[in-house]
Amino acid sequence: MAIDQEKPELPEQQVLAPISISSESPEPLYRQLRLALEHQIHAGTIVQGLPLPSSRELSRELGLSRNTVNAALQELLASGLIESHARRGYFVNSQLLGRQPPAQEGTSRNYRPLDLRRHIKSWVAADSPEITKISNWRDYPYPFVAGQVEESDFPRLAWARALRDSLDPPHLHFALRDSVDEDDPYLVEMLCQRVLPARGIIAAPENILITAGSQQGLDLLAQTIMNDETTVAVEDPGYVDARHTFARTGASVLALPVDAQGVVPPDSFNGIDAFYLTPSHHSPTNVTLSASRRRSILDATASSGTIIIEDDYDSEFRYRGKPTPALKALTNSAHVVYLGSFTKFLAPGLRMGYVVADPQLVEVLRSQRRYRIRHIAGHPQRAMALMIDSGQYQRTISRRRTQLQRKWSKLTESLDAHLSWKVNAPPGGVTVWIKGPAQLDCRLLMQRCLRQGVVIERGDVFFSNSSAHRNYFRLGFAAINVNAIDPGVRRLATVLNDMGYLELD
Amino acid sequence: MAIDQEKPELPEQQVLAPISISSESPEPLYRQLRLALEHQIHAGTIVQGLPLPSSRELSRELGLSRNTVNAALQELLASGLIESHARRGYFVNSQLLGRQPPAQEGTSRNYRPLDLRRHIKSWVAADSPEITKISNWRDYPYPFVAGQVEESDFPRLAWARALRDSLDPPHLHFALRDSVDEDDPYLVEMLCQRVLPARGIIAAPENILITAGSQQGLDLLAQTIMNDETTVAVEDPGYVDARHTFARTGASVLALPVDAQGVVPPDSFNGIDAFYLTPSHHSPTNVTLSASRRRSILDATASSGTIIIEDDYDSEFRYRGKPTPALKALTNSAHVVYLGSFTKFLAPGLRMGYVVADPQLVEVLRSQRRYRIRHIAGHPQRAMALMIDSGQYQRTISRRRTQLQRKWSKLTESLDAHLSWKVNAPPGGVTVWIKGPAQLDCRLLMQRCLRQGVVIERGDVFFSNSSAHRNYFRLGFAAINVNAIDPGVRRLATVLNDMGYLELD
Repeated sequence: MAIDQEKPELPEQQVLAPISISSESPEPLYRQLRLALEHQIHAGTIVQGLPLPSSRELSRELGLSRNTVNAALQELLASGLIESHARRGYFVNSQLLGRQPPAQEGTSRNYRPLDLRRHIKSWVAADSPEITKISNWRDYPYPFVAGQVEESDFPRLAWARALRDSLDPPHLHFALRDSVDEDDPYLVEMLCQRVLPARGIIAAPENILITAGSQQGLDLLAQTIMNDETTVAVEDPGYVDARHTFARTGASVLALPVDAQGVVPPDSFNGIDAFYLTPSHHSPTNVTLSASRRRSILDATASSGTIIIEDDYDSEFRYRGKPTPALKALTNSAHVVYLGSFTKFLAPGLRMGYVVADPQLVEVLRSQRRYRIRHIAGHPQRAMALMIDSGQYQRTISRRRTQLQRKWSKLTESLDAHLSWKVNAPPGGVTVWIKGPAQLDCRLLMQRCLRQGVVIERGDVFFSNSSAHRNYFRLGFAAINVNAIDPGVRRLATVLNDMGYLELD
Repeated sequence: MAIDQEKPELPEQQVLAPISISSESPEPLYRQLRLALEHQIHAGTIVQGLPLPSSRELSRELGLSRNTVNAALQELLASGLIESHARRGYFVNSQLLGRQPPAQEGTSRNYRPLDLRRHIKSWVAADSPEITKISNWRDYPYPFVAGQVEESDFPRLAWARALRDSLDPPHLHFALRDSVDEDDPYLVEMLCQRVLPARGIIAAPENILITAGSQQGLDLLAQTIMNDETTVAVEDPGYVDARHTFARTGASVLALPVDAQGVVPPDSFNGIDAFYLTPSHHSPTNVTLSASRRRSILDATASSGTIIIEDDYDSEFRYRGKPTPALKALTNSAHVVYLGSFTKFLAPGLRMGYVVADPQLVEVLRSQRRYRIRHIAGHPQRAMALMIDSGQYQRTISRRRTQLQRKWSKLTESLDAHLSWKVNAPPGGVTVWIKGPAQLDCRLLMQRCLRQGVVIERGDVFFSNSSAHRNYFRLGFAAINVNAIDPGVRRLATVLNDMGYLELD
């Protein structure tokens, strides 16, 4: 993955998503506008480096009086969400973005403000952008979003039945009890006997901790093994939330480049305490880490005493060839901590994952977890164990794999047909990573696409140096209906063509 | 609540719970014994300050050879769980208790030990005992445990139906989606409109954060507003896990005494950054904080800028008179952070609670939560919203209150009939707190009771100075069947009588 050092120029004009203001709403017009702008700012559809349209332009475009528009802008200014730059116009206040406190006025009258500056010890670091998702992606006809699933695919009857069965004895006790820091022994057993062997991993119950999604595994681990004296290596580009989770402990994050063989290991792991990677298919590019790199990374980290954090997300989804075994499956991998998820492919909102690690480390993570959330809810743990034991879980994975494979083929064919660049998507995962010509600005592309009903994800935020990588974007294909893929790509190609990008490169 | 400064003398002999060793088990005899002892050590039924029975005694009592007994003790020694003190015998290693790493031998052969000392930054502080629960309480005929519920009381059909209904549109989307850091808006709405008003609290959606049980609320708050420069006041006796959660941030914990009016406020709150309390009914004594103390605490903390953390657990359960409104319900309570639970009374294993606070603080907590677990599972959130909207939730609370009231009456009557001391249990909650004569050792009482099938909870651990308060214990009545209460109290009285305690005081 070559890195473009040339900083792409920003487009000159901010393009807003459509705003509809109704004079029949009980809400005042200025307030409707303010809320619409707030929404777009939080949704990330407004390019931060560009000025907002002027009040004159907004007034003309929306058919509103200048007073109305100014009232909305004044409120946004007062809330700190936008800033006025002399002679350049209004800009989004990027320091506040993502963590903007909601307006207090009008809604919670019995609260008087608290002097939070005195009390709050840890504001979120603002120097690295967070992934901002468009939460109303379902309202768009072509939602190429990542991390969501098509709802009609969900095995509703089987899951409802497993939940209901978990409320009968002998399961009921485990569904309802306060287990303090324990996991459901049935789920742990099913994980060891049925799920992990499929990834080549031999584990005993004391190697397992059940977590609220793999994010909790990441966090417990980060809080346990990292502090401001720790150096943790990550992939660049890489999974943004992992980087954030590590950085919040004060750890130094070392970004390692990624090429067609996966992450490029450093000459030496000495001084690197932990190494987070996604070997099955790299996030976000989907590249599989080559066998020789795996071996050399395992050997080098074993001798340097570096802990490997293997995030094996969506490893079930490979559409050609054999799945590669997990790093944790190779011998002498005691220093590998493995993070997996039961639910990411099934429904990310179910939030159930696990950690496989050395028993002593598991006990420390378990103690951390006790004082964070005690334990994961017993009822879904028991239901998941029943799903696995009945084979329903495995059947659902197979079915999902077939569906995703069809979508992957359709998407890669459509991209080859409608885009002039070669995409070369590796056969796996639930997203396709695309590098556009150097001049492309993914933020502007995202905006323009949204106006055409196409949701794409910007790629720059996956890089430690976002501003040097504006020409990347990502298409998720798990949530979109297979029949919407080709028309969606056609619209994307039209937008790219209108912006002049298809002629380039 | 007078504090006995006199340190009670320890009984001289360690009494183990019954151990059954079978020569027909495939497990070697020594290993059966080792596991039985390990279990008792972790369950807390072995008094830490007393030596274990000698190998000669164990051998005679269990009918095992000295070699077998010694092999078991050697393994426990090797694992560090017990220590040998010259000429005094074997003692439980209290430093390791609660966090003992499980044995690695035999079960996870492919792992070689990791040098965790290099990596782990935060071991749990060992100076304050953790609450150790007996996890197999169901196996005892008289389980006076706290924090569990009687399983037959659970509204199984209603909960299963709400879960199933949540898998139909329009709910399905909210059950399955990755909402990143958002809560289910329907549940938040139900909380504001239906649940909180019953506690006198007016809140808007931006005041709410849904948590994985109130433990997560405590933890997010502690991680946000406490560090090693913070002083947090707590009740003494008080909720142990809150004290631990605060202490883990490095905060100084200031213990305030509790009397018949509830916690005794200090002369001044200056220098106290936060104050954690359980005003509805104090944990563990069930005392309700008096109206005049409420007012003076609210006023004093408002002027000192102290944040009040109000844990309103089980506030629904008051059996005589009117429930007192929450502190958060009083005016000028913007500095009160309110912690509540949807599920503690219903089934603690469901793990769903909430925080009500200043909107800005909620946003910081939300960002913390995003990097810990992202969000609470969507499916149970939606199901809980449906339960509340249909009125089923409120009906279940009413039914549960009636059941608990019957149990409370039965228990207090039985205690009055069979114990010679006056108990004076306040009419609320799900436990009765008992102060025995100064000579009573709750650890020994717990052991002896277990041998009679009666599970009680030791009371000393609720005090910041446990060793000066061995004469307290607690009986939970939510999990025990109402018909088992009187026979259970009779057995307890017999044990107390055998130990000579009923004659005292």
